[in-house]
Amino acid sequence: MAVRVAVAGASGYAGGEALRLLLAHPEVEIGALTGNSNAGQKLGALQPHLLPLADRVLQETSPDVLAGHDVVFLALPHGQSAAVAEQLGPDVLVVDMGADFRLRNPADWEKFYGSPHAGTWPYGLPELPGGRAALEGSKRIAVPGCYPTAVSLALFPAYAAALAEPEAVIVAASGTSGAGKAAKPHLLGSEVMGSMSPYGVGGVHRHTPEMIQNLGAAAGEPVSVSFTPTLAPMPRGILATCTAKARAGVTAESVRAAYEKAFADEPFVHLLPEGQWPATASVYGSNAVQVQVAYDAAAQRIIAISAIDNLTKGTAGGALQSMNIALGLPEELGLSTIGVAP
Amino acid sequence: MAVRVAVAGASGYAGGEALRLLLAHPEVEIGALTGNSNAGQKLGALQPHLLPLADRVLQETSPDVLAGHDVVFLALPHGQSAAVAEQLGPDVLVVDMGADFRLRNPADWEKFYGSPHAGTWPYGLPELPGGRAALEGSKRIAVPGCYPTAVSLALFPAYAAALAEPEAVIVAASGTSGAGKAAKPHLLGSEVMGSMSPYGVGGVHRHTPEMIQNLGAAAGEPVSVSFTPTLAPMPRGILATCTAKARAGVTAESVRAAYEKAFADEPFVHLLPEGQWPATASVYGSNAVQVQVAYDAAAQRIIAISAIDNLTKGTAGGALQSMNIALGLPEELGLSTIGVAP
Amino acid sequence: MAVRVAVAGASGYAGGEALRLLLAHPEVEIGALTGNSNAGQKLGALQPHLLPLADRVLQETSPDVLAGHDVVFLALPHGQSAAVAEQLGPDVLVVDMGADFRLRNPADWEKFYGSPHAGTWPYGLPELPGGRAALEGSKRIAVPGCYPTAVSLALFPAYAAALAEPEAVIVAASGTSGAGKAAKPHLLGSEVMGSMSPYGVGGVHRHTPEMIQNLGAAAGEPVSVSFTPTLAPMPRGILATCTAKARAGVTAESVRAAYEKAFADEPFVHLLPEGQWPATASVYGSNAVQVQVAYDAAAQRIIAISAIDNLTKGTAGGALQSMNIALGLPEELGLSTIGVAP
Amino acid sequence: MAVRVAVAGASGYAGGEALRLLLAHPEVEIGALTGNSNAGQKLGALQPHLLPLADRVLQETSPDVLAGHDVVFLALPHGQSAAVAEQLGPDVLVVDMGADFRLRNPADWEKFYGSPHAGTWPYGLPELPGGRAALEGSKRIAVPGCYPTAVSLALFPAYAAALAEPEAVIVAASGTSGAGKAAKPHLLGSEVMGSMSPYGVGGVHRHTPEMIQNLGAAAGEPVSVSFTPTLAPMPRGILATCTAKARAGVTAESVRAAYEKAFADEPFVHLLPEGQWPATASVYGSNAVQVQVAYDAAAQRIIAISAIDNLTKGTAGGALQSMNIALGLPEELGLSTIGVAP
Repeated sequence: MAVRVAVAGASGYAGGEALRLLLAHPEVEIGALTGNSNAGQKLGALQPHLLPLADRVLQETSPDVLAGHDVVFLALPHGQSAAVAEQLGPDVLVVDMGADFRLRNPADWEKFYGSPHAGTWPYGLPELPGGRAALEGSKRIAVPGCYPTAVSLALFPAYAAALAEPEAVIVAASGTSGAGKAAKPHLLGSEVMGSMSPYGVGGVHRHTPEMIQNLGAAAGEPVSVSFTPTLAPMPRGILATCTAKARAGVTAESVRAAYEKAFADEPFVHLLPEGQWPATASVYGSNAVQVQVAYDAAAQRIIAISAIDNLTKGTAGGALQSMNIALGLPEELGLSTIGVAP
Repeated sequence: MAVRVAVAGASGYAGGEALRLLLAHPEVEIGALTGNSNAGQKLGALQPHLLPLADRVLQETSPDVLAGHDVVFLALPHGQSAAVAEQLGPDVLVVDMGADFRLRNPADWEKFYGSPHAGTWPYGLPELPGGRAALEGSKRIAVPGCYPTAVSLALFPAYAAALAEPEAVIVAASGTSGAGKAAKPHLLGSEVMGSMSPYGVGGVHRHTPEMIQNLGAAAGEPVSVSFTPTLAPMPRGILATCTAKARAGVTAESVRAAYEKAFADEPFVHLLPEGQWPATASVYGSNAVQVQVAYDAAAQRIIAISAIDNLTKGTAGGALQSMNIALGLPEELGLSTIGVAP
Repeated sequence: MAVRVAVAGASGYAGGEALRLLLAHPEVEIGALTGNSNAGQKLGALQPHLLPLADRVLQETSPDVLAGHDVVFLALPHGQSAAVAEQLGPDVLVVDMGADFRLRNPADWEKFYGSPHAGTWPYGLPELPGGRAALEGSKRIAVPGCYPTAVSLALFPAYAAALAEPEAVIVAASGTSGAGKAAKPHLLGSEVMGSMSPYGVGGVHRHTPEMIQNLGAAAGEPVSVSFTPTLAPMPRGILATCTAKARAGVTAESVRAAYEKAFADEPFVHLLPEGQWPATASVYGSNAVQVQVAYDAAAQRIIAISAIDNLTKGTAGGALQSMNIALGLPEELGLSTIGVAP
Repeated sequence: MAVRVAVAGASGYAGGEALRLLLAHPEVEIGALTGNSNAGQKLGALQPHLLPLADRVLQETSPDVLAGHDVVFLALPHGQSAAVAEQLGPDVLVVDMGADFRLRNPADWEKFYGSPHAGTWPYGLPELPGGRAALEGSKRIAVPGCYPTAVSLALFPAYAAALAEPEAVIVAASGTSGAGKAAKPHLLGSEVMGSMSPYGVGGVHRHTPEMIQNLGAAAGEPVSVSFTPTLAPMPRGILATCTAKARAGVTAESVRAAYEKAFADEPFVHLLPEGQWPATASVYGSNAVQVQVAYDAAAQRIIAISAIDNLTKGTAGGALQSMNIALGLPEELGLSTIGVAP
């Protein structure tokens, strides 16, 4: 029996990616598609790459429209998920691709988002210690942010194995789709092609407390995070370069061993052979994560680097993976580890 | 029972794309992978996006290695397919993604390739009139060139409906993967990013006689083709702008009707709604073709434009589609019409 | 004594490019900078690449602000130039980078722009036959459109030498800056990177009548033009592929000779050596034009291809070149033929 | 009287950029151009953007060819500069854009380059403390590496003002031209477009000891450097994200003050207004450096970010700037602070 899935916010990048993946999921039947400002339009005009859905018409995001589905994906602006979720009933699996329910500490939410905290839902990063157990059978899933996905997967093994000092320094490059589909001058093709630029510098990016939360949980102690995001001239992909001072006694071998152990049974995370480094192109459109790690003996730092597709593993693919776990389906169902390259 | 498929030339772009698609084909089991200069290397080092095959080792392209498969894909340099195909036996389905067996006229081959003609195989463009029948049950398939795929699909309806004079003027833009994986200075990222440039101008590009062959067959008379390819700063995609003088009495309505009729039942070709134009991003990584057509009454010309992914529908996806037909499998099996966008 | 120049519309791409070039002009002193919606802002926030002007503040576009300059560049939306120009007085050189005064036939203007025709000013393409004479001493200059610049330079020699039939078929690829700086969803980096797409297909692009005007003047008879513009994933550059049926008796040699003659004394147009083809990267940021031409004997067509920087030779560089002529300065003053490559 | 300049290695990216800038230098006359593997070819075929030099023919790199110039720029592979420089005589100004003479510590050279150290020349980064004095009147200049230029300018003020702990963590993104013009598969456009990837991870990149040298000199004590370079999908530009733990008592104000002081009189380094961040597009083709700095109070780190054009300020522009100083010319002569954007 098919799982009937609605997508609220189907006209944006996260919603479009969710639909791209849901179309390929063998157990899913796509139900209502909503998008407030675009309600009444055909999806073919908004998401021309989703050919099988070209004639589907977007509806208003309302309880009536979203009723009668087994799963509802929310791809809404921050702050709007709670109101919709409340109306969906406790038996519907609600998968929130926004930020509203990711943070455990209300003070963090209020500091970074400037509004009252809506609550905390089970966190959709199965690869973290205890991650799968938290999702099994759950009816609510908070999909992680794209940067926290890349960063947490790159660094948690070092913290879980007590190899690193609790001060991480992270610089990540993201494709422009991470900034969404709203037309802003600095996101024009003319501006971004041929250019690298930082933004949200100095500890102010909203994904920072989520990284601190994940790495601290892995470490068992507070971890400070210096996080600098940069915008790269590509549509998709995150390359996260994550470093931390190594604890005394750490060696290249002990680092490698910790990472091999952490990812030995992970279906989506691929620790590359030594000497090979991640590239975002290799995971383009896939749910795979490429990870590599090095130990710089001179600087006494661990450098862990991950590449993901920000829309797939970083958003909608991670969401489907968690949905599979919550529904008791095979975790890999409908998800690919094959990138579209070159 | 699985169809066992070998790929000769698995380290290049065409071979890699064939593997990407074959991995997603539910009836296929991937067998031997060969690549002469890379024999002995792991595929993970050469095609890092093909994660499930990362540990497979490339073998020499030899009859022994290729023996015992139901299907052999050839992704070899021009001129090398005949020798390999001869050794494979008449019961093996040989799918040649190179040019060797595309042309019917030996003189065309000799003029454009400068070597003796190897022969002509059934042509793998099912959408052409009579295209499917030629492939059913065949044990040899000549996969069309990427440009002829885009151009023939854009223009054959106009010729089949006798709407156009037999002189086509075509300008097409291709992503750089069409030029292959051999390292040449003019294909360096530093050279191609931010640049458009033409090549093979003046009727000398090797895909020209193939277009003439296809359009002439549709028209039932010889069609002259002026073809100018250009290199675009993107990895994948072909946008083919194809124009021809309209015959007397042609109207926008008669042109639209001819195209609607031509593609009404085509699973992969999508005639866009009026007013919407193709974009290569919309078919990225998919086997879909976007087509749109306009009639310029002032210039009395039909302008038909298609967008394909040169590696998918233009090479390996078209190859799988034809393989499906030849094997009696559903034509769409394992092939997607969903692009990876944005 | 310095030429004092104001720029109205300094916050957009055309205005910014004009300033970039004016800064390098040895006889120019930059005066007032205006921009209505951005008035009051520092230029450094809007055009961060124009470091020497970072602290200049934009003013309102008003007669008072623009008064007291020798030259006023207008980089305004279509339809706004006439009202501003009227107030500037007959002794001020007004250089309009918009479309308002390019067309000679009011019916063309009304058909393509849907508003009353404002008039016709001397046309700023000195390389056309009689082009320089029309500009000498003029106090009004209509800067050509970017596409008409590229197309007219590529094709006028064939028409001036009576080598081509009066039916041109043109496909051009433009960088995204040609679409301006207004934030529109289809111009987002996420949408344009990795994608080629056409627009304005079927004879409806507003630059079409301007091409017809220029080529007809060169031919001495009406020339029909089929023009298809495409959007390429790069910030700058136009590659124009222009073809026309050759008249009887035309040979590769006669075509080459006509182009050599046409450009023998041109400081900015470079007819490439045979076998070398234009690339937009080679003219990036420069006022140079690369042209190459071939004769396809099988299709009996002349294929002339040009590459320009749409913002430089295609807009602001062409404007400065014409300004130099109008002011009696050396035509090349302050303009470079050196591209920024790779 | 013109300064006569020869360029050895004129066919590569560094040599081409040197020529692009030398052509615009009012006191320079361009003399011999050499390039061993390309000797005998016209420059127009190798550097088509350098239109004024299109007909110049490359010669062999020999003492005879390089004799009789006031200045010789060396754009040679690492390890080849010493042999050429020895033959040029002590009165010729030799500007080495390679690495051979940058490092002061022979052990560093031997460790990172695996060959005997050739010596140390005055270091061409005038903005460093004491930088100009070292260059005045010098006849030998070691042009800094592109990454060390970006990194040293971003971080030396923090170290010179004793604001930062001596452990820097740096992640930089470079355009592909930094990897040179030699055709390598991983530098193909098909591979780099749409992809970010790291390389030289773990303290092994050859520019690391140069950064340690510069930052240590500014700090007056050894500084450890963790440096991770990444390859970005753009032809030019470096964005260097540089962080260091702040010393006790550091505030956002004290950091800002130190940077304002460091760059107050620098003609090429532009400390952006607070809230505005560097972008490589803004310095495209120019010798300008954009710098911004933030203090992250939560992580107690200083984040200093710089953007340069790797070929201009990062190589050839920096070389001309130092040449000007060495020759007693105005430092800014012939160099632009205006980027080519968008």
